[in-house]
Amino acid sequence: MKIAILGSGNVATHLSKALQAIGEDLVQVYSPNIEHAKILAEPLGASAINHLNEVVKDADLYIISVKDDAIAAVAEGLKGANGIVVHTSGTTDSNILSSKFENAGVLYPLQTFSKSKEVSFERIPLCVEANTDHNFDVLNKLAHKLSNQVYHLDAEKRRVLHLAAVFACNFTNHMYALANELLVKNNLDFEIIKPLIAETADKVMANLPENVQTGPAIREDNITIKKHLDMLSDLPELQEIYQKLSNSIKISHK
Amino acid sequence: MKIAILGSGNVATHLSKALQAIGEDLVQVYSPNIEHAKILAEPLGASAINHLNEVVKDADLYIISVKDDAIAAVAEGLKGANGIVVHTSGTTDSNILSSKFENAGVLYPLQTFSKSKEVSFERIPLCVEANTDHNFDVLNKLAHKLSNQVYHLDAEKRRVLHLAAVFACNFTNHMYALANELLVKNNLDFEIIKPLIAETADKVMANLPENVQTGPAIREDNITIKKHLDMLSDLPELQEIYQKLSNSIKISHK
Repeated sequence: MKIAILGSGNVATHLSKALQAIGEDLVQVYSPNIEHAKILAEPLGASAINHLNEVVKDADLYIISVKDDAIAAVAEGLKGANGIVVHTSGTTDSNILSSKFENAGVLYPLQTFSKSKEVSFERIPLCVEANTDHNFDVLNKLAHKLSNQVYHLDAEKRRVLHLAAVFACNFTNHMYALANELLVKNNLDFEIIKPLIAETADKVMANLPENVQTGPAIREDNITIKKHLDMLSDLPELQEIYQKLSNSIKISHK
Repeated sequence: MKIAILGSGNVATHLSKALQAIGEDLVQVYSPNIEHAKILAEPLGASAINHLNEVVKDADLYIISVKDDAIAAVAEGLKGANGIVVHTSGTTDSNILSSKFENAGVLYPLQTFSKSKEVSFERIPLCVEANTDHNFDVLNKLAHKLSNQVYHLDAEKRRVLHLAAVFACNFTNHMYALANELLVKNNLDFEIIKPLIAETADKVMANLPENVQTGPAIREDNITIKKHLDMLSDLPELQEIYQKLSNSIKISHK
């Protein structure tokens, strides 16, 4: 397939590389910042562009992978495209594209991407949506070449999944960051806590999280909770989060 | 070493098994509930007891591994013991023991234990504290036989570490649980989100968490945040947590 990539962020980068690895033909990378477009385009052997009117008209697939609030504007600039136009967003409605293009869909990879870290695309759940059965078949086939876990979700379920991902990934990472804030403040190294982080994630690979909850809140160990809140008295932000989440754990297990 | 275990919970269970595996002599397991004592004692070839006056007087090491608020009472019942008496708590002062015993210390394993899941003790950070240099040497040597990561922390640092662990483990697991609550409510399987959880933990093995934060909050994507808050309108508890943590992420990256 001849594919144009609209965007040069984390998702665009990882997805493009995975598409190239399975033999697809990446023809263009668009970014409003030509330097950003070049960084991604060059190793792919694609051309870098920074104006939407330069986008080829004959690609089989256009992948819009930009911030949610920029999708509409990029789509507007693609008008007249015949290939399938998809976005990679967890929250954006698919009709933002199906209202503009004959062939439209969504290809949402449920993963956290950082440019500095390679990920194996095979193990990334890919959620596919399309405006026609034929387009679904095309995207589904491509998704199966990229990943072992392909899901056919409607827009509502995709949105829920994205929301759940904010808790399981973004907020989780912030818990790690708050832990590190406490460690750094007391000259302790983040290293010491890594085995605990790894095991906490590993535990839920074979158990539901509500069945393996540990810690002072689920034990109703109010003496320890009180001590911890006192230790956080000079960090009111963390104190409030500690209180809120401890209560939430207690409520969940009532 | 001749070792008596006071307690039969998750930490007592995993620590006893690890001690047996390195060839130590587990002589007794105490629990106020004799059935609980037996479950742990029997596979260890130790005797199960449920009265503190039955504890042997000649053990080299007494490990008190009970809820924090029960440590003092168990220690009281051990009075007269000559061996080293330690507890395994992250938050309890060491002087709760050093005030009562000539030989006292702390052996705090920084890990989350569930009876249903084996863990490899070698990779568990062990924090050691003792009331004399000699006792420290004994405990430190034992700790090094159990684990590759042994830390000599004072009480203050141990407490901070435990508090950080609540964020990195207990609250993190609760984030997984809240994600699952959303998934279940919408007939989505927890399975779909596992690769994301695994990658989120894996990322911080080689990066500081604040450097790999992703998601709507750090992107200041207020449209998505607003959509998510609307989706949570019938779950005020989760809505409040979403709002609080998104703000906290924004503040941390200002």
